[in-house]
Amino acid sequence: MSKPVASPTEFDFKEIPGGVTAAKGFRASAISCGIKNPTATRLDLALIVSDRATATEGCFTTNRVKAAPVRLCQQHIKEGDIRAIIANSGNANACTGLQGISDAKAMTKAVAQKLGVRMKQVLVSSTGIIGMNMPIERVTPRIGELVEALDAKGSDAASQAIMTSDTKPKSYAIEVECEGKPFRIGGIAKGAGMICPNMATMLCFITTDAAVDPAELKRATQSAVEQSFNRITIDGDTSTNDTVIVMSNGASEIPLIKSRSPCTELFRAALRKVMLELAKMCVRDGERVTKFVEVRVQGARTYMDAKVVAQTVAKSLLVKCSWHGGDPNWGRIIHAVGYSGARIREELVDIYFGGLIAAKNGLTAGTPVKELEKVVKKPTFTVTIDLNLGAANYNVFTTDLSEEYVDFNAAEYSAAVHAKRQTGLA
Amino acid sequence: MSKPVASPTEFDFKEIPGGVTAAKGFRASAISCGIKNPTATRLDLALIVSDRATATEGCFTTNRVKAAPVRLCQQHIKEGDIRAIIANSGNANACTGLQGISDAKAMTKAVAQKLGVRMKQVLVSSTGIIGMNMPIERVTPRIGELVEALDAKGSDAASQAIMTSDTKPKSYAIEVECEGKPFRIGGIAKGAGMICPNMATMLCFITTDAAVDPAELKRATQSAVEQSFNRITIDGDTSTNDTVIVMSNGASEIPLIKSRSPCTELFRAALRKVMLELAKMCVRDGERVTKFVEVRVQGARTYMDAKVVAQTVAKSLLVKCSWHGGDPNWGRIIHAVGYSGARIREELVDIYFGGLIAAKNGLTAGTPVKELEKVVKKPTFTVTIDLNLGAANYNVFTTDLSEEYVDFNAAEYSAAVHAKRQTGLA
Repeated sequence: MSKPVASPTEFDFKEIPGGVTAAKGFRASAISCGIKNPTATRLDLALIVSDRATATEGCFTTNRVKAAPVRLCQQHIKEGDIRAIIANSGNANACTGLQGISDAKAMTKAVAQKLGVRMKQVLVSSTGIIGMNMPIERVTPRIGELVEALDAKGSDAASQAIMTSDTKPKSYAIEVECEGKPFRIGGIAKGAGMICPNMATMLCFITTDAAVDPAELKRATQSAVEQSFNRITIDGDTSTNDTVIVMSNGASEIPLIKSRSPCTELFRAALRKVMLELAKMCVRDGERVTKFVEVRVQGARTYMDAKVVAQTVAKSLLVKCSWHGGDPNWGRIIHAVGYSGARIREELVDIYFGGLIAAKNGLTAGTPVKELEKVVKKPTFTVTIDLNLGAANYNVFTTDLSEEYVDFNAAEYSAAVHAKRQTGLA
Repeated sequence: MSKPVASPTEFDFKEIPGGVTAAKGFRASAISCGIKNPTATRLDLALIVSDRATATEGCFTTNRVKAAPVRLCQQHIKEGDIRAIIANSGNANACTGLQGISDAKAMTKAVAQKLGVRMKQVLVSSTGIIGMNMPIERVTPRIGELVEALDAKGSDAASQAIMTSDTKPKSYAIEVECEGKPFRIGGIAKGAGMICPNMATMLCFITTDAAVDPAELKRATQSAVEQSFNRITIDGDTSTNDTVIVMSNGASEIPLIKSRSPCTELFRAALRKVMLELAKMCVRDGERVTKFVEVRVQGARTYMDAKVVAQTVAKSLLVKCSWHGGDPNWGRIIHAVGYSGARIREELVDIYFGGLIAAKNGLTAGTPVKELEKVVKKPTFTVTIDLNLGAANYNVFTTDLSEEYVDFNAAEYSAAVHAKRQTGLA
C-alpha cells in the first residue's frame, strides 16, 4: 500500500517554457509545404520525435466519420514504442477514402525511413478542410528537411505549424518534483472553431520525461481528457480529426509511475493541469469569440443530470447571444435548463452570474440588473446553476456567439475550392 | 369496416381566407393594452370564441419549466367544452411563480364573466419576455372591450396581437368537402425565434366547424403536430410557453368524425395541412433568417436514426453558417451526420443539394462547385442525406444562421428591464 498523501495543488507545479520539447529527450521541427495554398509560406508541417523508447497513449474523436490519419493512429498506437508524430494543417485528410489512408501511410513511412524506425512507430495527425485529397506530392519529398530541422527548442515552430483559424499558438509546460527529483510535462495544441458544436479539429500533443507504465498512462490520459478537452467539446460533437496524444519516454530520473506509486497522484494532477490549461487556451481563442464563460452546475440529482444541464446551457444559441450582448438574461438560461431533459424542479432553481444571484427559486432574485450587467459585460465570468436537488455537479468552459463568428464561417468550402481552381489544382 | 379510400391529396383542399374565424361559429378580436410598453399602441391581447360547445385538444411544451398559462390550460382542457382562448404578447408569464398562476387565472376569470361561461371553459396563452410579472392591471379591466370587439372577421386582428418578433402575421385556412358537404379548418400562429434551438414561443390556434369525437381529435392533433411543429422545434427544445390548441364546434353539417368515419382520413390530412402551412410560415419568418431549408434523411436503419441525423444537421451552427454564405460545404454536413449518434457508415453516405449530388459514398462526387452553389445560394432549397443502410426517413424544416440573428438576440433582457425603468414601472 502507498502511504496517504495530500492531493497535489497548484503550488506543486512550476510553469516552464518549452511546450512539447520541455521534457528531456524530445525534439520538434516545422516547415512550410504550401499544403492549403502552394504559394503561401506559413509553417504547416510539424514533427515531434522522442530520442528514446516511449509509452504512448491517445484519445481520438468519437465521430463516426473519422479522418484517415485517425484511423491509422488507432492502429499504430496499439503496437507500442511510438517514436514520432507528424502533423499538418491545411488539409484534414477526412472523407478522402482509400486515397486518404494511402496518403496518411505515405507520411508515416517517409518519417520512419528518415528516422530509421518502423512505420508503425510513427503517428500522423491532420487538420484543415474536409473532403479534399491531401497534396501528398508537396509533403513527402520534404520530410528529410523536416527531420534535419529537429531541435530541442522546436516546440514553438511546431505549435505554429498546426494552427488553422487559431489566432495564436498554444503551448504550456510545467516542472514537477517527485521524491526530490524533477520531471517535466508539456504540450502544444490547436483549437479554434466554436468549440461547441464544433467542426474545427482539436489537436493536442503532450510529452513527458516521466517514465509511466502503459496501463497507468492510459488511465491518467483518459481521466485528464474527461476533465479538460471533454468539457469544451460538448456532447460528443467532436470533429472528424480530434486527437490527443501523450508520449512518455522516461528521460527523467524519477521512478516508474504505476497505478499506486508515490508520485502517481502527482503525475495525474500534472497531466490534468497541462491539458486543462491547453483546453482553456483553445476556448479563449475560439473563432471570433469575445467572452470566456465557465458554466457550473451544482445540486443535481445525478452526475448525468449535472452534465446535461451544463452542456445544454453552454450550447444554447440564445444564451450565447445574450452573453455576447452583456445581457444577464437568466430567463434564457432557465429555459435551457428546462429543455435539457434533466430532472429539475423549476421552483428550486437558483442562477448566479459571478457571485451575484439573478434567480432564486425559479423567480427573479431582485438583484439590480445594472449589477448583473457588470458581471456579464466582463470578458470572463462564471454562470452557476444550482438545481438544489442533490449533490452532483459538473462544469464546462464555453464562449459567447458573435456576429463575426457567423460571418467568418459562411463560405469556407467555396473559398477553398475556388482558391484551388485559381492555383490550377482543381 | 370503412371502405377503402384513396389518400387525400392537395386537390382535396381549397384555400380560403378567414384564418381562425374561417370556420363557422367562431369569432375573434384584439385590442392594445400596452403589456410590454404602456405607451405603445400595437395590438397585444386577442380573444377567440366559439359560439357553441366544442371538443378541444391541446399540445403543450415539453420544457420542464412551464409558464403559468400552460399549467392552467393543461388543467382547464381536461374539463371539456372550451369556449374561448385569451392570448397576449409582450409578457410570457413564465418563471413568475404563484403570482403568475394568479394572473393567468384572473385573465380566464375576466373572460368567463363577460362571456357568461365557467372559468374552466377559457384557455389562456402568453408570449413575450420570461421572468417578469404580467402587468395584469392593464389587462383585466379591458376584457369587456375585447369581448365587445368579437367579430366573425376578427382573425386578422387576433393574428397580429400574438406577434412578438414575427415580421408578419401567420394565418391559413382551407375548405374541404366531406360526403358532398363542406367543412372548414383554419388557424393563426406566431413563431419567430430561431425555431431551433429556440426560446421564442410558438403559439398556434386552430378552429374547425367539423364535429369531431374527442378521442379522434386527440389522435389527429397529436399526429399533425408530430408532422409539422415538431419538425421545426427540433429535439424537444421547446419554449416555456409553446402551445397548439385545436377547437372543433360541429357548426358544419358533416357527420361526426370518429376514428373510422368516411371522412376521418380527410380530416386528419386537412388538420395536418393547416399545421404544416403555419409551421412553414414560422420557419420562413424566423428571426433575421435568410434561407428556408428542408433537410431530408433517407436510407436510415431506423426511424430514430433518421430523426437524429436530420435534427443534428439542421441544428449544426457550422452547417447553418455555410448555408448563409451560399457555401455547398458537404464536409460540415457529413461531420454532423458522424457525431449525431446514429448508426451510419461513412463510406455509404450520399449528400445532395437540391437534385445535385455533392458527396457519393462519403467522398466528393465531383459535381462542379459552381453548380452546387447555384442551389445553396437560393433562398429555399433541400438537402438530402441518404445513409444507404435501410428504409427509414425523416425530414425537418430549418433555416440558416445570420449575423443579424446574433445581433438581434444580444440584449433582450437588459433592454426590457431598462425600458421598464424608464417608464417608471421597475
